[in-house]
Amino acid sequence: MLIFLRNDADPAARERVLALLRGEGIPADLRTQGGASFVEAPPEADRLRERLLALPGVERVAEDPAYRLAAGKVPEGETGSRVTVGTVIAGPCVVEGREVLVEIAEAVRAAGARMLRGGAFKPRPSPYNFQGLGEEGLKALREASERTGLPVVTEVLDPRDVGLVGRYADMLQVGTRNMQNFSLLSELGRQPKPVLLKRGMAATLGEFLAAAEYVLAGGNRQVVLCERGVRGPGDETRNVLDLAAVPALRSLTHLPVVVDPSHATGRAALVRPLARAAAAAGADGVMVEVHVRPGEALCDGPQAILPSELERLVDECLAIRSVLADRASLATGA
Amino acid sequence: MLIFLRNDADPAARERVLALLRGEGIPADLRTQGGASFVEAPPEADRLRERLLALPGVERVAEDPAYRLAAGKVPEGETGSRVTVGTVIAGPCVVEGREVLVEIAEAVRAAGARMLRGGAFKPRPSPYNFQGLGEEGLKALREASERTGLPVVTEVLDPRDVGLVGRYADMLQVGTRNMQNFSLLSELGRQPKPVLLKRGMAATLGEFLAAAEYVLAGGNRQVVLCERGVRGPGDETRNVLDLAAVPALRSLTHLPVVVDPSHATGRAALVRPLARAAAAAGADGVMVEVHVRPGEALCDGPQAILPSELERLVDECLAIRSVLADRASLATGA
Amino acid sequence: MLIFLRNDADPAARERVLALLRGEGIPADLRTQGGASFVEAPPEADRLRERLLALPGVERVAEDPAYRLAAGKVPEGETGSRVTVGTVIAGPCVVEGREVLVEIAEAVRAAGARMLRGGAFKPRPSPYNFQGLGEEGLKALREASERTGLPVVTEVLDPRDVGLVGRYADMLQVGTRNMQNFSLLSELGRQPKPVLLKRGMAATLGEFLAAAEYVLAGGNRQVVLCERGVRGPGDETRNVLDLAAVPALRSLTHLPVVVDPSHATGRAALVRPLARAAAAAGADGVMVEVHVRPGEALCDGPQAILPSELERLVDECLAIRSVLADRASLATGA
Amino acid sequence: MLIFLRNDADPAARERVLALLRGEGIPADLRTQGGASFVEAPPEADRLRERLLALPGVERVAEDPAYRLAAGKVPEGETGSRVTVGTVIAGPCVVEGREVLVEIAEAVRAAGARMLRGGAFKPRPSPYNFQGLGEEGLKALREASERTGLPVVTEVLDPRDVGLVGRYADMLQVGTRNMQNFSLLSELGRQPKPVLLKRGMAATLGEFLAAAEYVLAGGNRQVVLCERGVRGPGDETRNVLDLAAVPALRSLTHLPVVVDPSHATGRAALVRPLARAAAAAGADGVMVEVHVRPGEALCDGPQAILPSELERLVDECLAIRSVLADRASLATGA
Repeated sequence: MLIFLRNDADPAARERVLALLRGEGIPADLRTQGGASFVEAPPEADRLRERLLALPGVERVAEDPAYRLAAGKVPEGETGSRVTVGTVIAGPCVVEGREVLVEIAEAVRAAGARMLRGGAFKPRPSPYNFQGLGEEGLKALREASERTGLPVVTEVLDPRDVGLVGRYADMLQVGTRNMQNFSLLSELGRQPKPVLLKRGMAATLGEFLAAAEYVLAGGNRQVVLCERGVRGPGDETRNVLDLAAVPALRSLTHLPVVVDPSHATGRAALVRPLARAAAAAGADGVMVEVHVRPGEALCDGPQAILPSELERLVDECLAIRSVLADRASLATGA
Repeated sequence: MLIFLRNDADPAARERVLALLRGEGIPADLRTQGGASFVEAPPEADRLRERLLALPGVERVAEDPAYRLAAGKVPEGETGSRVTVGTVIAGPCVVEGREVLVEIAEAVRAAGARMLRGGAFKPRPSPYNFQGLGEEGLKALREASERTGLPVVTEVLDPRDVGLVGRYADMLQVGTRNMQNFSLLSELGRQPKPVLLKRGMAATLGEFLAAAEYVLAGGNRQVVLCERGVRGPGDETRNVLDLAAVPALRSLTHLPVVVDPSHATGRAALVRPLARAAAAAGADGVMVEVHVRPGEALCDGPQAILPSELERLVDECLAIRSVLADRASLATGA
Repeated sequence: MLIFLRNDADPAARERVLALLRGEGIPADLRTQGGASFVEAPPEADRLRERLLALPGVERVAEDPAYRLAAGKVPEGETGSRVTVGTVIAGPCVVEGREVLVEIAEAVRAAGARMLRGGAFKPRPSPYNFQGLGEEGLKALREASERTGLPVVTEVLDPRDVGLVGRYADMLQVGTRNMQNFSLLSELGRQPKPVLLKRGMAATLGEFLAAAEYVLAGGNRQVVLCERGVRGPGDETRNVLDLAAVPALRSLTHLPVVVDPSHATGRAALVRPLARAAAAAGADGVMVEVHVRPGEALCDGPQAILPSELERLVDECLAIRSVLADRASLATGA
Repeated sequence: MLIFLRNDADPAARERVLALLRGEGIPADLRTQGGASFVEAPPEADRLRERLLALPGVERVAEDPAYRLAAGKVPEGETGSRVTVGTVIAGPCVVEGREVLVEIAEAVRAAGARMLRGGAFKPRPSPYNFQGLGEEGLKALREASERTGLPVVTEVLDPRDVGLVGRYADMLQVGTRNMQNFSLLSELGRQPKPVLLKRGMAATLGEFLAAAEYVLAGGNRQVVLCERGVRGPGDETRNVLDLAAVPALRSLTHLPVVVDPSHATGRAALVRPLARAAAAAGADGVMVEVHVRPGEALCDGPQAILPSELERLVDECLAIRSVLADRASLATGA
C-alpha cells in the first residue's frame, strides 16, 4: 500500500504517518520518486486506512498504485502542459536520406498530416538488418521539419541517446520492444520533450500505463500512448490491432491515445479502413507509414501507403470525427 | 493439390485427368463434395500444373483448396441467393421469457435494429449454469418476431436440433466454441436457412473460412461471418476484437462480415465506440446485446446496453456509413 | 452460489434451504443434474453461508461450482470406477486401412505401448481434406485390438455417433476443437465407456475442467484429461505444450492427465524429449503418433515417429518414472 | 540475402562479389559487423547463388541471416570459449541484504546449486515497486560468492551499467522485458563476461536467436539462452513454460539452454515438477528462485522454494540426467 502525502506536507506530517504504522508493528518506509513523496507499507496496513486518511498531510491511500499519475482525469491546472496530438502523424518507416525524406514530408503535409514520423535509430530484429542512419537521419528530420513546418517524432533506443535525439526531435518515441525498458523511460522522464510510448506486443493495459508512469513519475507529464497491436493467432496480419484499448484507456487514464494501423497489420491495404476505425473508436490521432515509392522502401515497404491514399485517409477520418462531434454535442447540448 | 473440374465436364474429361496423373506415377482420386467434382493429388502434382490446365474440362488447380467456395468474388449468377445483413442485429444474450423478450424486441426495433437476436440453447462453460429455455425460448423468439416484424437469429448447438431451430429461426447461429464442430456445420449445409458463423476464439482467418466452407460445400451458400474477438493479453476486455479481420476478410472472401463488440469486450461501455469502429472499417453489420434491465439479465448483463444507447449507436453507425459512401462514390465517380 | 444437498437429504431438508433463502428475499431454485441435487442462488446468498451450512442435509456450499465433480481428491468408494491409463497410447493419426493398422498396432505393442490410437472420424480444417474411413475404420480398430490385445481409443465428432463408436472403441476421444461441444460431452456422459478429453487450443484449466464436468455430471465418472498444447507465438512448433498444466491440474482435480506431444509440436524430432518431460512432470501417460512409414501417412506424417523411436521413448519414460518413484518413497518412507 | 566472406578473403575477393552482383543490376553493399564481413543484397540475388559460391573468398550464402553465429553446431576451435552451465542456478528473486543473501547462498550451495542468482537492479512494472539495492546489492552478491565459492549471475538493465555489473558478476542477465533492447545487447557484446539471455514473453524462437546474435556479433561468443515461459490463456500459471523450445533450440543453435520454472509459473508448488521436466527434455540447466523464508521475500515470494525443496529438485534432476545419459550411451555405443 502507498500512502501519498500532499506536496505541502511538512516533515512532521510524514513522521506522524510513519509513527502510526510502526506503532502498530507495520514496517514502513518514506520514499520519493519524481517529486512525489509517499510512504510504502505492506498490504496489512489497509486496516489502518481510515486512521491514515484522517492524518493531516495525507493526500490519498492507493491499493494498486502502479499508475497513480496516469490514472483518472487530467490533473487540475495541468491542462496546458499536456501534449496536443495532431490528427495524423505520417512518414516513412526509416529515414533513408535527406532528399527522399523531404519529398515524403512535403507530400504528407499536402495530404493533411500534422506531424512527420521517421526512424533514425531502428530497432531491427537482427544485427544484420539496416539499423538506420543515426545522427545523419536526425539532421534530415530536422531539415524536413524546417522545410515543411511539421513537427517530427522519432524513436530513441538508448538512454545515452536521449539528449541527442531530443536536440533534433519534437517528440521522442519509445518502440514496442522497449515499452518496459525502464532505464530508457526514466531517462525520458528527466527531459522536457513529449514522449510517444508504444504498447508492448503482449502488454496488458495495466502494464502499459505503469510503463507510462515511469516517465510521468520522473517529472515529464507529456506522454502519448500508442496502440499498435498485440500478438494473436494467424499471420494474415502481423499483429491484432486492439481498438477496444482506445475506449478502455479513455476510462483509465487522461493520457491521449493514438493508433498505428501500419505496424499493427503490416499490410498497406488495411491501413485506411483501420485508421477510420480508430477515429470512430475515439482515438486522438493515428500514426501511419507513408512512402512516395513503397517498392523502394528500405524497411517495411509492404505496409507503407502512398500520399494519395493518405489524403483519402485524412479526409475520411476528419469526416468521421465531424459527424461524431455533431452527434455528441446534440446528445449533451439539447 | 486439387484439380477442380467444370460442372459440365463429362466422364471422359475426368478420366483424362486421372490418366495423366497416374501415368506420371502420382496417386490421384476423384471426389465430389457439395456438388463440386475434383481430383485430389499430392503436392508433387504441381509439376504437371500446366498440362493439367490444358486438359478440357479442368476449371482450375488450387494449391490451398481449403476454402474454394468462400474465396474471391461473389460467384456470378449467385448474387440473389446471398444473405442480406441488416445493419444492426440486437437483443438479449439469452431468451428469459416471452414477455421480457417482446419488450426488448419492440425496444430494439424502435431503436433501429433490423434483426432480433437471443439464445434459446446456450453453450455455457459449466453444466451448472443456466442452459437456456430450449424450444420454449424458440417459441418466444417466433412470437417476438411476429409482433415486431424483425427476423430472428438464434444459436444451434447440436446437429440433431438443426431442424427444430430452423422451424422457428430465420438465421441459425454457430457460436465461437463450435466454429470447428464440423458435424454441426455439415448439417447446416444441408438445410436452407442462412447461417451466422462466429469466429473461434483462437482461429486464424484461414481456419474461419475453411469452417464456413463446410456449410457452403454442403450446398448452402448463405453464410455470414461474425468477428467476435480472439484471446489476447490482459483482462481489461474479455477478448481482443480483431477489426483488421474486416478488411482482411474482404480481400479473401465474398461472404458478408458482421462484428459483435458485446462478446468481444464483455463491457457495455465499450460497445458503442467499437460498433462505430466496425462500421468505419467496412463491416456489413454489427450484432449487439441489448436488455431493458441489464442488472436483471440472466446472462452477460455487464455487456448489455440499453435501448437508448442502441439508438445512438445506430444513428452513429449510419452516419459513418453515409459519409464514407459519399466519399467512395466521389472517389470512383469523378 | 450452489448449495449442494446430501444424497440422503429428504424433501423437507430441501424445503428448509429454499425457505431460508426466499425468506431473506433471495431467489433460489432447486435443480438436479447428473444425480446431484443442488440449490442455485445468486452470489448475495453468501451472507447466509453459515446459516445454510448449519441446516441438516446441506453437504457444502460452493462459490465457483463450475467443476464440483472434477475437483479435489478421488471420491471415496469410487476408486474402482476410475479409468486406468496405460503408460503409453500410440498409433497412427488416422486409420488408413486394416492391414497397415494391424502392422502399426503390432509394432507399437512390441515397442511397449498399452493402448492403440487411430482416427476413424477425423475433424479436418477443410471439407476437402480426407475425413477418415468412418465405420470401416472403426472395424479396423476392433480387429487390430483383437489381434494385439491392446484396447483402442478413437475420436467421436458427432453426438449421433456416440453409440456407434462406443460399440467398437474402448475409450472415446473428444478432440481439441470439440472441447466445448457441450452436446457431445453431455451425450458422452450418458454412456459407459471412458472418455479422453483433449484441452481446447486456447482453453484455461478452469474451462477444461468445467468441460469435463459435463461428462461427469451426466453420470460417467471415467474421464481422462489430455494436454496437447495451446496457441502461442511463432511457428517453430504447432502449439505450445503446457506441461505446467500437469502439476497444476494435479492440484485441482482427481482426474488422470495424459500428454500428447505429437499434436502439440507437429514435429517428430520433438516427441521423445517432450514425452520424457511429461513423465518427469508427473503425467499419468503420454499419447503419441506412430507410423511404420511416416512418409506415406495420409495425415500428419511429419509428427509421426517410428516404432523404434517409440521403443526408446517407452524405455526412457519408464526409467524416469522409476527413479522418481524410488525417490518419492524415500522421501515419504524414512 | 547475405554473402559471407571468409575471414582471410582479400579485398579483391570482395570486389569480385560486388562486381558480379552489380553487373547483373543488383544493388549490393559491403558491410562488417562484429568482425564478420558480408555483402548484403536483395533476395533476387538468389538466382546468382551458384555463381557466388563459386567465387574465391565466399564462405557461404544465407537466405535468412538473422542469426548466423548462433546457428548450427559449435564452431570448430571455439569449444573452449563457450560458457559452461552449472546444473542448477539458484537464489532469491532480489538481493534484500548481505546477511540474508549469504544465508541463502550457503543453503543453495549445500542443496547442490552451482551458481547463485539474485537481482540488484530489478525491472519492476511500476516505478513505485522496490527497484533493488543497486551497487549495494552487487557487493552483497560478490561477498556471497566469495563466502560460498559459487559464481553469481545478476541482471543488468541499462547499457551504462554494464561495466559496473561486470565488475561484480560472473555472468550478466538480460531479462525478458529487455530481450529486444538492442542497445543493451550490443553493449554486452563488447565486454567479456558471459550473458544469460531470457526469452521475451511473446518472442518466437527466431526472434530469440536473432537477439542473441546481437551479443555474438559484437564479439562475445558466450551466450546462454533461458526459456521462461510465454503469454498464454488463463491465470492458473503466470506464463506458459514452453519446454518444446528446449529440443527445438537444440536443432537450431549451439548455444546452451537453461529453463526458469519459477518465473514461468509463479507458483512454488510447480517448480520442482517442471525442473525435472526441463532436465528430461534435455535442458543444460535450470534456474530457480530459492528463499530461506519465502513469506518474507520482498519480491515474488509465492514462487520461491525452500532449500530443502531445492535439494530434492537437484537430486531428481541429476537422477533423470543420469538414466538418460546411460541410455544414450547404450543407443550410440553398441
